[in-house]
Amino acid sequence: MRLRNKKWARPWLVEHADLVIDQEHAVALQGKWQTIFAAEQPIHVEIGTGKGQFIIGMAKKYPSINFIGMEIQDSAVAVAARKAFDDETDLPNLKFIYGDGAGVETYFTTGEVSKIYLNFSDPWPKTRHENRRLTYKSFLSGYQAVLPKGGELEFKTDNRGLFEYSLYSFAQYGVTFMPDGLSLNLHQDSEKMLDNVETEYEQKFSEQGFPIYKFTGSFD
Amino acid sequence: MRLRNKKWARPWLVEHADLVIDQEHAVALQGKWQTIFAAEQPIHVEIGTGKGQFIIGMAKKYPSINFIGMEIQDSAVAVAARKAFDDETDLPNLKFIYGDGAGVETYFTTGEVSKIYLNFSDPWPKTRHENRRLTYKSFLSGYQAVLPKGGELEFKTDNRGLFEYSLYSFAQYGVTFMPDGLSLNLHQDSEKMLDNVETEYEQKFSEQGFPIYKFTGSFD
Repeated sequence: MRLRNKKWARPWLVEHADLVIDQEHAVALQGKWQTIFAAEQPIHVEIGTGKGQFIIGMAKKYPSINFIGMEIQDSAVAVAARKAFDDETDLPNLKFIYGDGAGVETYFTTGEVSKIYLNFSDPWPKTRHENRRLTYKSFLSGYQAVLPKGGELEFKTDNRGLFEYSLYSFAQYGVTFMPDGLSLNLHQDSEKMLDNVETEYEQKFSEQGFPIYKFTGSFD
Repeated sequence: MRLRNKKWARPWLVEHADLVIDQEHAVALQGKWQTIFAAEQPIHVEIGTGKGQFIIGMAKKYPSINFIGMEIQDSAVAVAARKAFDDETDLPNLKFIYGDGAGVETYFTTGEVSKIYLNFSDPWPKTRHENRRLTYKSFLSGYQAVLPKGGELEFKTDNRGLFEYSLYSFAQYGVTFMPDGLSLNLHQDSEKMLDNVETEYEQKFSEQGFPIYKFTGSFD
């Protein structure tokens, strides 16, 4: 979902260039991401971080992981980063990239990222827009390029069509299913909910009783 | 679901041994199934045919396919076969096997069956009963043994846990996803519903608003 344009976003992003890395600097940091975090620890990346509820929640819950939220929309990444900046908890393990998910392999070297999250990505329902879906093979190839062998991909959505398509795309690409790596109604899976961090969408749609779909797999 | 025992079932099955083949005769017919049908045409098998609504509906809808409903419970197979026998439509393209799905490779030779259907199979939810689920690897191996290369497997259920498990089991075994071979809410997929033949369970549960899951894949 596109946010209404926020006039304060661009200047704010410029002022907080240490928290929100732009594309040019992200490319320059390839292979050196550990240098901008307080501690050297595994890096997890969310592609399409939106307003940031998930990645901020994760950064709080798992202080021994470094998180990066990537977002192509300036207003959204500014909202997310400002939320993190204003949070009462100091989050030295969280950064953002104001950039394009299609560029992921230009920002990271192989194995630099341990895990990738896709949450409630734009479904692009028309067949002619298939190559814009974040689970299209060209994107999967990008994720594979930055993950180590066995690196994980986690994907949540409420969009049935996108999930059906994505399971097919994962199978075609050879993203290996984890045992117990699927939930077709996450919020009714009490065991899988123990570790769940909600996104804004997820909270809204699950409260309305819609099923949330989740897939966890790995790249060989 | 186990049907209440029906006293008339066993004698009825004996009297209609040309319509309902028992295990011993099924083994003897291995490689020769075309001889008992009116016309030589592709054979499709449903494993666990229950009270027969699906297989009878399919036999009516597709007269140029020979159908076999396999069922291990005598009362159920008798109900199904009697329903077919009493039907106003003559169905020369429908037979039943009163026998065990685990024996499928003892009844058919490789390629003798073109397609296999599993509908609303017993979920066996306990982990220690995993090997009884009709999508467990030993069963998949049996299906593969009787299908040609590229032979299809179609699976419908309302049971979320069984479906999640089965998608994992298919992926592990290498049952290849068909493009568009997945529906996570079949009865809301108007295009996929065009060809759909309902089972008794499916009718009941979809009317109650529960999602029906469907997978179509093929063995390489």
